[in-house]
Amino acid sequence: MSGNWGRWGSSDEIGALNLVGPDEVRRAASLVREGTVVALAQPSGAEGAVPPHRGRGMRFMDRDAGDYALGARVVGGFKFAEDTVMLSTHSGTHVDALSHVWSGDELFNGHPASTLRSTTGAARLGAETLRSIMTRGVLIDLVAARGEPLPASTRIGAEELARGYASAGLVPEAGDALVVRTGWWESHRESHADYFDNEPGLDESAAEWIAAADIAIVGVDNYAIEVQPSSEGTRFPVHLALIHEHGVPFIENLELDGLVGRGVAEFCFVVAPVGFAGSTAGQVTPLAIL
Amino acid sequence: MSGNWGRWGSSDEIGALNLVGPDEVRRAASLVREGTVVALAQPSGAEGAVPPHRGRGMRFMDRDAGDYALGARVVGGFKFAEDTVMLSTHSGTHVDALSHVWSGDELFNGHPASTLRSTTGAARLGAETLRSIMTRGVLIDLVAARGEPLPASTRIGAEELARGYASAGLVPEAGDALVVRTGWWESHRESHADYFDNEPGLDESAAEWIAAADIAIVGVDNYAIEVQPSSEGTRFPVHLALIHEHGVPFIENLELDGLVGRGVAEFCFVVAPVGFAGSTAGQVTPLAIL
Amino acid sequence: MSGNWGRWGSSDEIGALNLVGPDEVRRAASLVREGTVVALAQPSGAEGAVPPHRGRGMRFMDRDAGDYALGARVVGGFKFAEDTVMLSTHSGTHVDALSHVWSGDELFNGHPASTLRSTTGAARLGAETLRSIMTRGVLIDLVAARGEPLPASTRIGAEELARGYASAGLVPEAGDALVVRTGWWESHRESHADYFDNEPGLDESAAEWIAAADIAIVGVDNYAIEVQPSSEGTRFPVHLALIHEHGVPFIENLELDGLVGRGVAEFCFVVAPVGFAGSTAGQVTPLAIL
Amino acid sequence: MSGNWGRWGSSDEIGALNLVGPDEVRRAASLVREGTVVALAQPSGAEGAVPPHRGRGMRFMDRDAGDYALGARVVGGFKFAEDTVMLSTHSGTHVDALSHVWSGDELFNGHPASTLRSTTGAARLGAETLRSIMTRGVLIDLVAARGEPLPASTRIGAEELARGYASAGLVPEAGDALVVRTGWWESHRESHADYFDNEPGLDESAAEWIAAADIAIVGVDNYAIEVQPSSEGTRFPVHLALIHEHGVPFIENLELDGLVGRGVAEFCFVVAPVGFAGSTAGQVTPLAIL
Repeated sequence: MSGNWGRWGSSDEIGALNLVGPDEVRRAASLVREGTVVALAQPSGAEGAVPPHRGRGMRFMDRDAGDYALGARVVGGFKFAEDTVMLSTHSGTHVDALSHVWSGDELFNGHPASTLRSTTGAARLGAETLRSIMTRGVLIDLVAARGEPLPASTRIGAEELARGYASAGLVPEAGDALVVRTGWWESHRESHADYFDNEPGLDESAAEWIAAADIAIVGVDNYAIEVQPSSEGTRFPVHLALIHEHGVPFIENLELDGLVGRGVAEFCFVVAPVGFAGSTAGQVTPLAIL
Repeated sequence: MSGNWGRWGSSDEIGALNLVGPDEVRRAASLVREGTVVALAQPSGAEGAVPPHRGRGMRFMDRDAGDYALGARVVGGFKFAEDTVMLSTHSGTHVDALSHVWSGDELFNGHPASTLRSTTGAARLGAETLRSIMTRGVLIDLVAARGEPLPASTRIGAEELARGYASAGLVPEAGDALVVRTGWWESHRESHADYFDNEPGLDESAAEWIAAADIAIVGVDNYAIEVQPSSEGTRFPVHLALIHEHGVPFIENLELDGLVGRGVAEFCFVVAPVGFAGSTAGQVTPLAIL
Repeated sequence: MSGNWGRWGSSDEIGALNLVGPDEVRRAASLVREGTVVALAQPSGAEGAVPPHRGRGMRFMDRDAGDYALGARVVGGFKFAEDTVMLSTHSGTHVDALSHVWSGDELFNGHPASTLRSTTGAARLGAETLRSIMTRGVLIDLVAARGEPLPASTRIGAEELARGYASAGLVPEAGDALVVRTGWWESHRESHADYFDNEPGLDESAAEWIAAADIAIVGVDNYAIEVQPSSEGTRFPVHLALIHEHGVPFIENLELDGLVGRGVAEFCFVVAPVGFAGSTAGQVTPLAIL
Repeated sequence: MSGNWGRWGSSDEIGALNLVGPDEVRRAASLVREGTVVALAQPSGAEGAVPPHRGRGMRFMDRDAGDYALGARVVGGFKFAEDTVMLSTHSGTHVDALSHVWSGDELFNGHPASTLRSTTGAARLGAETLRSIMTRGVLIDLVAARGEPLPASTRIGAEELARGYASAGLVPEAGDALVVRTGWWESHRESHADYFDNEPGLDESAAEWIAAADIAIVGVDNYAIEVQPSSEGTRFPVHLALIHEHGVPFIENLELDGLVGRGVAEFCFVVAPVGFAGSTAGQVTPLAIL
């Protein structure tokens, strides 16, 4: 396997996040100007968008105000509530761990797929290995460029990405976090039903461009980063090219409302996933800090 | 109720996180020097520390490499794994939402406790209202000061906090994130059994000091921030004083390994909780960015 | 409260199941003629019928054959699989515990509703108190009588029940299990979507008749026993009349395929619910033994 | 594979439950004399006995009386409660489905083990295929015979089973349900900690005897039917001999309190498992009807 396998050693589980080093962190910090923190996560919870084949998120109250209304014992005036949540980790705004997809018998960097079991979960490349980063984020706003949300199944290629950078007066740099706005979530927020069908998204040429540019992480305001349906004879080829070959994690289901319309193309970007051990994705609230 | 009720308007659900404004964000960014991102979360997952009265975290594989080994259909070489997780939200490293504790019939800022039900969860002050912040973090390292982890039930008072700031040559500023190292987690990591007994932690005088200093958020490397057992006749008085009266959220179960021994007392601190709607706590990977 | 409150003592949690005594058990056993055991439960599981406001059932494999295919250790040739299931207890074929519905501040027999909390579940009248019974079952087959499944919202009154018994040459006896076939499940099995709308079912007169006849338990092949929508100004009045006032449990979501078309109106009926402590319903596979 | 593979056809998923036919059902019904229904299940729920490697059962209230105390809307006086439960299916009193254990690449009767996946669960021999039965139950009460509960790791061999039948004046018959009392649960009920260590139970000779006698199902008041530890070099050989080779399901974790001390050795026995589709065990409340 070519790509980034072996590039950071045979035991590496971080992949393209290795591209974010001290220089990139400092550069990102220097982009903080206004002092505004913008969260880029969709609403999480029972009403969130969940693909039809996965269970919807659930929240169960283990103790609540009703218990006290019914006479639960109170000491020193202290009352508390607590709860348990359950969710499919590939729901809502999340980072795909590098164990999420593969081809053949090896995960990214040659880690054996046999480490990915019911009993252990992802013993390699699990969500707990998703390193938190601060790096430069670059927004390519295709909705602004087009004047409307992209139609279903619109293919976003290398050319659109190059043009996006250029029109913002920016040059791709290793370690960048690339954020692409398609408008898909914005136009399906009210009715999730069609959200999981035929999204516009990146195509194979975009994947090549991203890998060549040493982008560290990619986030899009759709459910799978890449255009659907996949090209004839393939299935999620952008996942395979970026996650499996190059170790580039994806941030899926971004909500970009707070970022758009500000005339900002580059910004300080922070991703601090919650990585449940052995899981294949980490829930996250990505931040743009303007 | 005195404290911070009404200070930011009657509908406010953010509490002391309001104290982090543009100036605080910019000041925090300016503290990034080395370009090192340090995650301050305990390992999450099935083996994580969970109080005995709560269910342990579970991760279930919905699809894994075993399915392909047994013949699951593959198109275009694409294989994927996914999973579902379940956890008590007050387990592991998390931020207590302002709905977590109260006294009487009102939550922080007078929101009615009757909004906190089995059916709806926390309809006010839920985990989804925990605003993400970047602010100055200040570490008070009581283990370094004492030369060893604090013994069980050690009370940390206002004086220790004032001394901690002073010995680092710092002055408390509104919007600070206060991080206290007791050594409790470090010394109980291998054996969780006693971790949930009689922790050292903040006492009532510390709570008053924190409120007076307009600290925005407090994190400690123990399970409940405050010393246990509580003073005679009280139960979790520091929770009531800070969360309920002053709207100061807590970050519980910090793991500070990456931060200590570096001679760093102030740093850029980022908290971006994953807030499941209606939950009473948000899982989080807090970051110190040095 | 009139009805059966106090009839079996103030601490009784069994309600009308008390009506099944040794005589009824022996009578039931004497009805076994062919030696055929017919299970009357709908298929349970991920694809089962679940009301839209409840989470669908989930089954998670904790260990399966894929783990061995990937190299899990085998000693002495022994391999095993195990799993965890999660389900809303009022899904599929289940018995409503007497804690399921009430009016005012008291559950059946005056047990305080304040025993029904998030922390404890149903501390009284929980699913674990549902006594297992063997008794005479009587089938009233309204589909056979009409020649087709009952249309939506068909009201089944006392008269239909009396006629059902009479036409089978039977007389109601205390302790009977009454089983009513409406055809609702049969005609909605393939498409669950409309199953939870406007079912045909028992009306208030039927409830009175059942209570007066000292029927021990009632089961119907629909989702809530009683006709929907409820009469103007009421909500689930048959639930209140039978469960709350008379302590008669319901078996909901029966599948009667194995019982119909055999010319059998009375039979040995066995109900052995799985009663999770503090739950409000018990999953069950009711049996007709012909 | 010898044993019962192929005995009831190559597609059979019922195994030894085929041995319960109309004659056995009628014989069982004829054993009902007193008219007493005795449930043989351990208490189920959050406090139930669960092996340390499995998650404990959980019950979450989705709606309870606290919601109404806090002002939830009531129409026509109707209030209701509902809940969700989660449990490891091999906890508490349950029937092991024939998919639970195997050796090599085939489950009982040659069904491919590759049907047992994370995605599908047990597509063959799942808990939903566990046929409900009524048959003769025979109690072999080794506690009564010995005068005390069996010590840890006591091996119960063919001889003890033969003697148990003989001393009750009974002869084994095809289709019998064999129930063995070891006293293990009785003596560990208060403290579950040691319950999952070194239980007394059946040995390999007992398994051979059971298979030769065409027993339909076996239940014991311990957690795994067979003696622990397993003989040198083997692991759960009785599981393999009975479930895998002969298709005899196990009922684990019986509670026999209601059955002992009555001088009853044979009785009407009913097993009606709740079989979640694709699961490897069905929860059950087995009944002895005296």
